[in-house]
Amino acid sequence: MNDAVNTRPIGVIGLGSMGGGMALSLLRAGLTVHGCDLNPDNLKAFTDAGGIAAASPAALAAACDVVFIVVVNAAQTEAVLFGESGAVETMTSDSVVVSCATLGAEFAEKLGARLAEHQVLMLDAPISGGKAKAHSGELTVMSSGPERAYEKAGAALDAISETVFRLGDRAGKGSAMKTVNQLLAGVHIAAAMEAMALGIKSGLDPEVVYEVVCNSAGRSWMFENRVPRVLSGDYTPTSMVNIFVKDLGIVLDAGKGLPMPLPVAAAAHQQFIAASGMGEGANDDSSVIKVYQATSGIDLPQKKD
Amino acid sequence: MNDAVNTRPIGVIGLGSMGGGMALSLLRAGLTVHGCDLNPDNLKAFTDAGGIAAASPAALAAACDVVFIVVVNAAQTEAVLFGESGAVETMTSDSVVVSCATLGAEFAEKLGARLAEHQVLMLDAPISGGKAKAHSGELTVMSSGPERAYEKAGAALDAISETVFRLGDRAGKGSAMKTVNQLLAGVHIAAAMEAMALGIKSGLDPEVVYEVVCNSAGRSWMFENRVPRVLSGDYTPTSMVNIFVKDLGIVLDAGKGLPMPLPVAAAAHQQFIAASGMGEGANDDSSVIKVYQATSGIDLPQKKD
Repeated sequence: MNDAVNTRPIGVIGLGSMGGGMALSLLRAGLTVHGCDLNPDNLKAFTDAGGIAAASPAALAAACDVVFIVVVNAAQTEAVLFGESGAVETMTSDSVVVSCATLGAEFAEKLGARLAEHQVLMLDAPISGGKAKAHSGELTVMSSGPERAYEKAGAALDAISETVFRLGDRAGKGSAMKTVNQLLAGVHIAAAMEAMALGIKSGLDPEVVYEVVCNSAGRSWMFENRVPRVLSGDYTPTSMVNIFVKDLGIVLDAGKGLPMPLPVAAAAHQQFIAASGMGEGANDDSSVIKVYQATSGIDLPQKKD
Repeated sequence: MNDAVNTRPIGVIGLGSMGGGMALSLLRAGLTVHGCDLNPDNLKAFTDAGGIAAASPAALAAACDVVFIVVVNAAQTEAVLFGESGAVETMTSDSVVVSCATLGAEFAEKLGARLAEHQVLMLDAPISGGKAKAHSGELTVMSSGPERAYEKAGAALDAISETVFRLGDRAGKGSAMKTVNQLLAGVHIAAAMEAMALGIKSGLDPEVVYEVVCNSAGRSWMFENRVPRVLSGDYTPTSMVNIFVKDLGIVLDAGKGLPMPLPVAAAAHQQFIAASGMGEGANDDSSVIKVYQATSGIDLPQKKD
């Protein structure tokens, strides 16, 4: 029974920096993978690697009973499932949606209930680790959903992840956990840029500041990961400023709904909004340091030729 | 010459959680150590371990030509050096003050100039790593000062540290670097407590939140170090709330002086001030989570008997 389940094709809707990498990891694991994406470049990279292109979410879902949704936000998740030629049109009873976008917990919980009306199981399964770990199949998955959904999606989850945290038996807890993680991730990026700017303004060598912090109690995963982009002067987006405008927005909406104040996250959010307001929204999120450059007059490291 | 230098006794003024541990590390390295502290318990622990008690900073400095100052702040540093029976009264020409308190860079630079008027060398040498690493002799030292001071203090620095970063040839840069580190450390503690409170309010198990974050992009050294105190419900101070009321104050004063805005640090500072205002100032800095408890009504883990 499990063998039969595992040999059915896996679908991936959204083949961007995260979904594209996850699709490659699924192919590497020997699975048959159908994918769709509005961007022809993303689709070509996927088919070049052995994936099967689908014309729409509905066409994809007709061939698969485990469908990963790796789009940017709640609106896109809604559209690819319930919009025109959406996946739900063709999904069969007992098939599984693995929802990977960062969603508010309340939205995720309602989505699980809506899919259940169509006899579709939902894994609320936001991911962490960035583009590199998506490609290497070493993501962290913060998930919740029914046991049956884990059984059906098990081989695929194994292929994309290093760790799958199971946080409950229905949608909502996975997204709540991702919200907590994004609070920290967003604050740490903003703090990293604030600290680097302070160091530069104080006359310290930015390379030395990086080295010292990485060996001190001030270090964070985000500091270690993002500051090298500032040092190289290369703001080619790996993860965009606007992602954290959105994700810290989800964090603060969660706080407002519960309700509880989240003042540190709110301060960090303003810095991402400021970067977006400066025209940096589609650049790498380390571009938040340009907000500090604008308000302190520091010189930033230049890109080497 | 170096042998003669290295066999002279080392002085430690301030034998609290950091200075006491550093004195033990110096003794373990086979050095003769003189210490002084206003607290008789601290002094007894030091003499029990083989240290020699001094009645005052002046009495201590008469016997040592390398003197560590491991007090809480600028006012105490000033007092033990230049106050009544201060160390400068008896320090000989070419002896070294190793200043370890977190000081503003401007204050540290002026202190170096004042000591130079007395022919005393200064190492601006704030430390990072906490009580445990002070005791194990594995601190990170962020330092600046003249070459001659490093030569004279070398054996002692080796005994207390894993890494000594040398950031310049005069006082100021060491403290500037520590200020950058404290910005990150303070923001990360406040963010850790904000995130844990959000997780608990969202209905997640705090133990699980800790485990997931420690395996995700939201992790920081402070999150990993401080959250276990919340999980155990034990707020016995390792590092007090009021230390970060002070240190983030130094960060924000630096920003005002340069000038540059530091909005994320400012938001975090308010949370430490709020904890202090709630009567938690002398408790562990993880007590910042009680500010979030007060504003969200969450239940926190209780101390096990």
